[in-house]
Amino acid sequence: MIDTLIEKIIEKNNPTAVGLDTSFDYLPDEMKTCCKTAEDAAKAITEFNVTLIDRIKNLVPAVKVQVAYYEMYGVAGLQAFETTLKTARANGLVAIADCKRNDIGSTAACYSAAYLGRSKIGDYEFTPFESDFLTVNGYLGADGLDPFVADCRKYNRGLFVLVKTSNPSSGQLQDKKMDDGRTLYEHTASLVTACGKDLVGKYGYSDIGAVIGATHPAQAERVRREFPALFFLIPGYGAQGGSADGLTVCFDDRGLGGIVNNSRGIICAYKSEKYKGQSYAQAAENAVIAMREDIYRSLQKAGKAR
Amino acid sequence: MIDTLIEKIIEKNNPTAVGLDTSFDYLPDEMKTCCKTAEDAAKAITEFNVTLIDRIKNLVPAVKVQVAYYEMYGVAGLQAFETTLKTARANGLVAIADCKRNDIGSTAACYSAAYLGRSKIGDYEFTPFESDFLTVNGYLGADGLDPFVADCRKYNRGLFVLVKTSNPSSGQLQDKKMDDGRTLYEHTASLVTACGKDLVGKYGYSDIGAVIGATHPAQAERVRREFPALFFLIPGYGAQGGSADGLTVCFDDRGLGGIVNNSRGIICAYKSEKYKGQSYAQAAENAVIAMREDIYRSLQKAGKAR
Repeated sequence: MIDTLIEKIIEKNNPTAVGLDTSFDYLPDEMKTCCKTAEDAAKAITEFNVTLIDRIKNLVPAVKVQVAYYEMYGVAGLQAFETTLKTARANGLVAIADCKRNDIGSTAACYSAAYLGRSKIGDYEFTPFESDFLTVNGYLGADGLDPFVADCRKYNRGLFVLVKTSNPSSGQLQDKKMDDGRTLYEHTASLVTACGKDLVGKYGYSDIGAVIGATHPAQAERVRREFPALFFLIPGYGAQGGSADGLTVCFDDRGLGGIVNNSRGIICAYKSEKYKGQSYAQAAENAVIAMREDIYRSLQKAGKAR
Repeated sequence: MIDTLIEKIIEKNNPTAVGLDTSFDYLPDEMKTCCKTAEDAAKAITEFNVTLIDRIKNLVPAVKVQVAYYEMYGVAGLQAFETTLKTARANGLVAIADCKRNDIGSTAACYSAAYLGRSKIGDYEFTPFESDFLTVNGYLGADGLDPFVADCRKYNRGLFVLVKTSNPSSGQLQDKKMDDGRTLYEHTASLVTACGKDLVGKYGYSDIGAVIGATHPAQAERVRREFPALFFLIPGYGAQGGSADGLTVCFDDRGLGGIVNNSRGIICAYKSEKYKGQSYAQAAENAVIAMREDIYRSLQKAGKAR
């Protein structure tokens, strides 16, 4: 699946993903009026996402759908999550389910079936929240990752495992040095690399990648250098303060190696001064184009533009 | 909420939780026949859980509901998850949602709203998957925990944060020594203790507790000694190989300090030789009684029985 993602990035000349972290609060007022229940809210969120997907489908290779924003609205919200993933994939976008799931053995296998593999009810098989990539948390070690990795192999899917996250306190545990002088995030990166060593595609990247925040360039650069087969999912651009210049260290000399997510900066662009008066879809489209240019300029400066 | 849990443990003289990790595969054949869709399966799972809850409600203080077994069946499965939590709480049981959620800032706040806090749609407020406790993963540091902790304070809920998990490879990262000589799981325990320091109840335990596997007694003993305010959720008894004698180190001299989960050993008891011929509800009841006796005997041997 990593080869498919990279090919879509090359085709659209755009290493970015639109984050559909669609909180009900983010919707335009006219979509929120009359919404009284979780079902109403979920329908409005779905409509918003479907409109956005149609608008950005030719500009970006992927969307990242953060499940927390749907779980928040219960069963109805998860229906919106399912429809959003399905719509994205039907429109030729790579769907990254940002769920940060984690558990062990048979329980991890259940999570994996929900997103990457197959759930079985007698002879009936299905994938309820079918996704191309899933984010997972590796704190439990290899046997927390193996069931997911097995489904990636079997069904041509991919993972992004949390390595160095974008938040201010990510260093509390992740930057701590072990007695061998290496940090926890390097040990995690090493574990992730080992899990994905048999799933390296034609561009040299593995289906089993890493989440590396745009807000920590020094750590990102170190992971890029030490673990060249890890493809990065890069959150933290924009709203969280990560700059395009800072994240060029995530990319290799071919301009490959990562996909940069932006959520609020795109889906809430219509609320900003810059895009004032535009519809949410028009503003999102313009924000996607501006982001592509921003990243392209920085990659060019770093001698890594495609 | 930790005081409520402890009081229910004392009242029932039983520090155990029944794990409703109800895979469709675990149901008796007669409940599985005729199930062709996710909706059918979810209904059968709900019926199984409701029957079990009615049977064990006077014997145990709590149930732990592992969401992966419901996510696996999609939106319909999550409806079963919601009904199971609601039924457990309506029957006076403490409901532990085992979701191991983790994210940062506003996203963590969404997860917290889904289980512990309140989701808002205009003036309408609700908690879609209302739970008394939620399990979370602390790899992201304090600002991944704070939004959950804030809701615990506001709505009288609790957390169990992964510290030392029960699986074989949990040591890959968790047992690694930092350059100060302490392991990662000790650093995590320290972080969890700091997050919960203002939420210590009348028994000396905090609403913000820790997941400590029954399969690693040496590590459990160390955490109990170093972090006396952490109440433990203890998986790994039974199917995973943890023994009652091994887990007495998790308890203090009053016989308090932890709650031991057992999932398959109870809900699948009817499939074992020991309970052959009994209904699943009868077998589960007997397995619960046997587990209580097993743990009581071990606590007595260790001089910690109540």
